[in-house]
Amino acid sequence: MSSLRVMGIDPGLARMGYGILDSYGNQLRAVVFGCLETPANTPLAKRLSILFHGLQTLLEQYQPQVMAVEELFFNRNTTTAFTVGQARGVAILAGYEHQVQLAEYTPMQVKLAVTGYGRADKVQVQTMVKTLLSLPTVPKPDDTADALAVAITHAHMAPFVAQEERIRRALSGGTTP
Amino acid sequence: MSSLRVMGIDPGLARMGYGILDSYGNQLRAVVFGCLETPANTPLAKRLSILFHGLQTLLEQYQPQVMAVEELFFNRNTTTAFTVGQARGVAILAGYEHQVQLAEYTPMQVKLAVTGYGRADKVQVQTMVKTLLSLPTVPKPDDTADALAVAITHAHMAPFVAQEERIRRALSGGTTP
Repeated sequence: MSSLRVMGIDPGLARMGYGILDSYGNQLRAVVFGCLETPANTPLAKRLSILFHGLQTLLEQYQPQVMAVEELFFNRNTTTAFTVGQARGVAILAGYEHQVQLAEYTPMQVKLAVTGYGRADKVQVQTMVKTLLSLPTVPKPDDTADALAVAITHAHMAPFVAQEERIRRALSGGTTP
Repeated sequence: MSSLRVMGIDPGLARMGYGILDSYGNQLRAVVFGCLETPANTPLAKRLSILFHGLQTLLEQYQPQVMAVEELFFNRNTTTAFTVGQARGVAILAGYEHQVQLAEYTPMQVKLAVTGYGRADKVQVQTMVKTLLSLPTVPKPDDTADALAVAITHAHMAPFVAQEERIRRALSGGTTP
């Protein structure tokens, strides 16, 4: 069984949470986590550049194989979605430029994977992040904990996705490794 | 009076319209315009990368001084805003990486600058784009015409913005060129 390094991202323009973890079988280990921040009084283009280069530095230093990002949310307003979208686009681009595979999960998939309950609240998710990664406290700010949550989601889902892919290939007559 | 080269952008994931024009006094000249397209069945990360590198190529080749982009829209749904936001973030990043100044205009400013009427419809704006740039036909697709419209808006607004800036500096005791 090989180890997998996943970078979770909670995109935002003011705060972009990130969390990198190693997954080996059932074991999870937090490698590094934190939050890239951009000042509100800075021009938009510069803020996007700060985030892009900040992520590039992390990608170069820690070489994750996968970037996991939440898919979409529908319960916020258009302006928020637009602003978050810009930051998310830049994050995904940074990953692609580093040949990192992109995985997207819905908020419900994240809740389900982390707590076992698809309608868990924010506090329950964050508490489970702390527990699953054996951290002394819940990572702060929320963006950091949320980034780790989506990374954990990918670590949990990856074996099933890989198995599905093997079955699909076997059924379609392709070779399986 | 110096000439100004403006690149207008109408951001989108499937189609990113662009239009570069030179402005000299009251004269406008279209330099190049078109639309970068990404296939729907391509992974998101790759689509964003196609747009980013497509714009980088245009920026390198044509060296605009300003990138003009529409500011926001509120009348579409969250998913659209989120998708467009991702493409817009990547476009703005491409401009910033080429030291191109970013200018944002509301849809109403674009309509006002291009047609003289802030509630003009799409067809009126596109017809004026054709007329103002002395083009034989309305540029297609709509994304291309819309990109040229926001470039025209900047060309119209820039002298006033520059004048306001000079007045502001003079009043605050700064030097004026």
